[in-house]
Amino acid sequence: CPCPLPSGDTALSRLVRRLLSARRSLDLCLFSFSCPQLARAVQLLHRRGVRVRLVTDAQYMGLHGSQIGRLRHAGIQVRHDQHSGYMHHKFAIVDRRMLITGSLNWTTQAIQSNRENVLVVEDAEYVKAFQEEFERIWEEYNPANYTFFSEKQ
Amino acid sequence: CPCPLPSGDTALSRLVRRLLSARRSLDLCLFSFSCPQLARAVQLLHRRGVRVRLVTDAQYMGLHGSQIGRLRHAGIQVRHDQHSGYMHHKFAIVDRRMLITGSLNWTTQAIQSNRENVLVVEDAEYVKAFQEEFERIWEEYNPANYTFFSEKQ
Repeated sequence: CPCPLPSGDTALSRLVRRLLSARRSLDLCLFSFSCPQLARAVQLLHRRGVRVRLVTDAQYMGLHGSQIGRLRHAGIQVRHDQHSGYMHHKFAIVDRRMLITGSLNWTTQAIQSNRENVLVVEDAEYVKAFQEEFERIWEEYNPANYTFFSEKQ
Repeated sequence: CPCPLPSGDTALSRLVRRLLSARRSLDLCLFSFSCPQLARAVQLLHRRGVRVRLVTDAQYMGLHGSQIGRLRHAGIQVRHDQHSGYMHHKFAIVDRRMLITGSLNWTTQAIQSNRENVLVVEDAEYVKAFQEEFERIWEEYNPANYTFFSEKQ
């Protein structure tokens, strides 16, 4: 594979290690996802049998370098918004118990060049609020609910 | 003033109320700042004698609608990065004890149209980490340290 998982004690490798601790589920709510190492970690979890769900932004998922197509191709469930506003969250929930959230979009540019923050929170109150937001979005972006044409009488 | 402070129980009014609870200091580290209501709250605190410091991104502070010039004009201390990468944080620290952080840029578009999250954290461990990051950035972006020309021998 051209993009080995990162090693050492960088911010990226620490993030990957947190993700790889998932045993049952990984819920991802990501505005932008172009970092190949993070995509590889997500694919690895999917192959291990972890239930991965991914919500993303419709306008960003088609950009050059996006990993969304690759993840879909690997069989991972992906849903996206259908609004003009951005689905601007950037959080992950591991096993419904660990919340990873912050300013960081999962892009190579952000990881290499920006000043960013990532919080890891295991406090049940915070995790619950984000898990509920994830479930709301997951249902709202269900393709069964798409409205491709506005209805005019 | 054309932009009264928001009332009622919207996410924006709750954010403004948290900010207005500041008595001594408000440290702002904001990628993008164009929301007039939030700028008005910050100006109000400055006029009350609260010590306001603001760090922002050089590439975004000049965009149409940015409130940075207005805040500088009001006498608020502003510093910005001088790198090609983004200063992508979006957090505020009230009285060195309450951290407000998340995905939300302080723009009207984000508040009105996007799916966003804002965490309010008073846990000292988290507040300390962000306060330290703020102080690092504040010093790093001190104009006394600017290098306008690269030195070549």
